[in-house]
Amino acid sequence: MRLSHGFVPTLKETPAEAQIASHRLMLRAGLIRQTSAGIYAWLPLGLRVLRNIERIVREEQDRVGAQEILMPTIQPAELWRESGRYDDYGKEMLRITDRHEREMLYGPTNEEMVTDLFRQAVRSYRELPQILYHIQWKFRDEVRPRFGIMRGREFLMKDAYSFDLDHAGAVVSYRKMMLAYMRTFQRIGLQAIPMEADTGPIGGDLSHEFIILAPTGESQVYFDAAFEEMDYFSAEFSPTNPDDLERFFKLMTTHYAATDEKHDTARWDTLAADRKREGRGIEIGHIFYFGTRYTKPMNTTVTGPDGKLVHPEMGSYGVGVSRLVGAVIEASHDDNGIIWPDTVAPYKAAILNLKVGDTACDAICEKLYAALDGNAVYDDRTDRAGAKFADADLMGHPWQIVVGPRGAASGTVELKRRATGERVELSVEDALAKMG
Amino acid sequence: MRLSHGFVPTLKETPAEAQIASHRLMLRAGLIRQTSAGIYAWLPLGLRVLRNIERIVREEQDRVGAQEILMPTIQPAELWRESGRYDDYGKEMLRITDRHEREMLYGPTNEEMVTDLFRQAVRSYRELPQILYHIQWKFRDEVRPRFGIMRGREFLMKDAYSFDLDHAGAVVSYRKMMLAYMRTFQRIGLQAIPMEADTGPIGGDLSHEFIILAPTGESQVYFDAAFEEMDYFSAEFSPTNPDDLERFFKLMTTHYAATDEKHDTARWDTLAADRKREGRGIEIGHIFYFGTRYTKPMNTTVTGPDGKLVHPEMGSYGVGVSRLVGAVIEASHDDNGIIWPDTVAPYKAAILNLKVGDTACDAICEKLYAALDGNAVYDDRTDRAGAKFADADLMGHPWQIVVGPRGAASGTVELKRRATGERVELSVEDALAKMG
Repeated sequence: MRLSHGFVPTLKETPAEAQIASHRLMLRAGLIRQTSAGIYAWLPLGLRVLRNIERIVREEQDRVGAQEILMPTIQPAELWRESGRYDDYGKEMLRITDRHEREMLYGPTNEEMVTDLFRQAVRSYRELPQILYHIQWKFRDEVRPRFGIMRGREFLMKDAYSFDLDHAGAVVSYRKMMLAYMRTFQRIGLQAIPMEADTGPIGGDLSHEFIILAPTGESQVYFDAAFEEMDYFSAEFSPTNPDDLERFFKLMTTHYAATDEKHDTARWDTLAADRKREGRGIEIGHIFYFGTRYTKPMNTTVTGPDGKLVHPEMGSYGVGVSRLVGAVIEASHDDNGIIWPDTVAPYKAAILNLKVGDTACDAICEKLYAALDGNAVYDDRTDRAGAKFADADLMGHPWQIVVGPRGAASGTVELKRRATGERVELSVEDALAKMG
Repeated sequence: MRLSHGFVPTLKETPAEAQIASHRLMLRAGLIRQTSAGIYAWLPLGLRVLRNIERIVREEQDRVGAQEILMPTIQPAELWRESGRYDDYGKEMLRITDRHEREMLYGPTNEEMVTDLFRQAVRSYRELPQILYHIQWKFRDEVRPRFGIMRGREFLMKDAYSFDLDHAGAVVSYRKMMLAYMRTFQRIGLQAIPMEADTGPIGGDLSHEFIILAPTGESQVYFDAAFEEMDYFSAEFSPTNPDDLERFFKLMTTHYAATDEKHDTARWDTLAADRKREGRGIEIGHIFYFGTRYTKPMNTTVTGPDGKLVHPEMGSYGVGVSRLVGAVIEASHDDNGIIWPDTVAPYKAAILNLKVGDTACDAICEKLYAALDGNAVYDDRTDRAGAKFADADLMGHPWQIVVGPRGAASGTVELKRRATGERVELSVEDALAKMG
C-alpha cells in the first residue's frame, strides 16, 4: 500500500473518549473508526490484522478436527423459546421485528441454532463426535459499550459447538478445544492462562476462561507462579491422542488460577507467598461443557450403539476474534505506538522514503516495494522525516526500512526492528534477506 | 474431509419448496439449510464454495486498486436521514430500535456510511481517487424471499465505492470496476453481459447490470449475438491505463444489450434478425455512477487543485457474492447434480472407496487422501457403491477417483471427470498427475 493514496487516517491527537491503550492506538493508527456507540468500521490496516488473527484461529480449529460452517446473524425467536433462553437473555439481546411481524434477533451466540442444524442432519452415534464452528459477527447490546472493540456491541466471534455420545467423549472434545485455544493464543503472541470460571447464561458444569494480564483488565485474577515458567508447547500434544489431551489438560489445570468470581481463598492460602501472583486480567476466550442443557429441551437425539435414542452431550467454545486485536495491542505497545507480532502484523515492513522526488531514493523504494510484493506499506507522502518516523512507530509494522538520500547514493538503507529499536545499515539485498 | 464424519447432510428427495435448480441442488448436496424464511446457514461444502468465490472477487478488486475495509452490519438511522433515503427505502429496510431507543437498521447497502468515513479521513484532491470496498452481510427484508440464496434476505455482498475529483475521473473508476467484474465472472466460469440499467434507489446517471442467461432468470433480456462471439480477454487490459479501460468499455457497450426495463425497440429493430438474441437473465452485479448524489447532501468536500472545496464524484459497485454461488450452479449442472468449475469447487476431488474395510482399497484411499492434502472429500462411509456414485455426482467435485477391490489389487483406480463423464483407469500416481 502506498500511503499517499492509502485509506489510513492517522491522528496526531489522542481522541478524548479512548481510555485504554488499544482503543487509543487503534484510532490514532487509523485501524478503526466508530460508526455508532460500540460499533466500528475496520479500515484497511485494521482489517488486515483482523484477517490474520481470524486465519490463525481457523487453522487451529481445523487442526483439532472442527468443521467450519457459517450461520446467519439474524435468528428466529422461536428457537430461543425452545431452549427457554428467549426471556432470560434480557436487554443485551437485540430484538427485531420483521415486516411480517415475526420476532427475530441478532444472534449473541448460537447454541440453539447449531443444535437445530445438528438435529436435522445427524442420526447415529457413528457420526459422532462432531465439532462445528463458525466465525461470524455477533451483537450484544451492552448498556455502556467502551474500550473500543474490546467491549463493542457488534463483534466478530469464533464459536464452536461439540456433540458427543457421552460424558467421556464430551471431555475429550473440551480438551481438544483447550489445546486449540492455547495454540491460537501462543501463535498470535499472547500468554494466556486458563482459569476456572462461572458458566453464566450458557449454563453447564465445567468452564474455563482464558485470561491475559493487562492493567486495564476487567477482573482481578489470582494464579500460581508456575504459569509464568511453563513452556506449554515444548512437547507436542496430538489432538487425536486422548492421552496427550489428558496430559495437556492436567498441565493447564493442576496449578491454581482463578478470577475473582471463582477465587478460593482457602486453596490460595496453601500457596507459598513467593508463588502467589495476582493482577488484572482480560478475558479472551471462554469454553463450556454443559451436557444435555440444549439437546434435551430441543428434543435432539441420535441412535446409540444399543439402538436406543440418546441426547448428545454438548460443549461450546468462544473466542472474540475482534477483541483479540485489542488484546494483542494491550500486550504489545510502547509510548510511540503499536508493536505488532510478526504473525498478525498488517504488513511485514514500512518503507520510509525520506526524500520523495530524489531519483536514488525513489528507485530504491520502488525496488523494495516490488520485492516485498504486497507485504509492505510505502510511505511515499511528501511529509517531513519526523512525521514519517512517528507514523511508522505508531502503526507498528515489525520492520522499518528507512531510505534517505545519503545512503541511497551509495545503495544502502537503514533497517529498524520495531520491537527492539535495533537499527542497522545494509544494502537493499541484505535488508531484504535479513527480514526473511 | 471424511464423509463418515463430515457435516454433509445430503438428501435423496427433492425438497418441495425448491423451485429452481440451484436451490434444489444446494439443499440436496448439503451445502445450505434454511434457518428462517430467506435466511440460510452455510454448511461446510457450501461455505468452501462461498469462500472461493469471495477470494476471487477480492483478488480482482485489489487488482484494480480498490482497498478493502469492513463496515458493520448495523447502521445508525441518522446517516440515512442525512442523505434523505431513510424514509424512501420502505419495508425492505430492516429497522431496529436498540435498548436506548436509538433508531438503527441492518444495512442493505453502504453509500451513506462510506461517505461518512471518507469525509472524516480525506482532505485533499491529492489523495484521490479512492476506491473502498467491503465484503459484508447485508439484509433486505424481501416480501417474498424465494429461490434459496438467489433471493434471500440475509446475503453476502461485495460493495465498492469510488471517490473522484471530477466526472472524467469517475468515469475511469467506473470502467475499472467494469473490468474487475468481467474478470471476476470469467474466473468463476460465468459468461456475463453488461446491460444498461435503471439506477433505482441508488440514484444517478449511468448504470450497468451484469446478466447471465438462465431459464429461471427474473427478467427478459435482449442482446446482440456479438456477445456470444467475443473473447473479452484475448487482449490484456491494464487497469492503470486509461486507454485500455476505454477500449474495454467500448468493447462491452458498443453492441446492443438491455433488460426489458431499458429495452429500446427502435434500436433493437435495426439489428438483423439473425443477430438478435433474447432470453431470461439473472442479475449478478450492478454498477452505478451518481456524481454528487451523496457527497452534496452529506456535505463532503475535498480541497481541489485551485484551493477551492469540491464535492467528490462517486460511484458504487455491487456484486452478490452468495448469489454467485447459485448463479454458478444455474449455469453448470445436469440431472445428476452440480458440476463445479475448478476455480470454485469445494474440493478438487472426491475419493470413492467402494469397499471400506478391504485392505488394498483402504490403503490406496488413504494414500490419495494424504496426497491431496486437504483438497479432497473421502467417501469412507459403508454405503453401497450406487449411493456413493450418486452423491459424488450430486456434490459435483471436478474429479472422482473410484477405488474398487479389483483395481486396487493391481494398484489402479478409475478417474472420472465430472464435467465430461470421461473415465480412465490409471495408477495412483498417474491419477494424481492427471488432476494436476
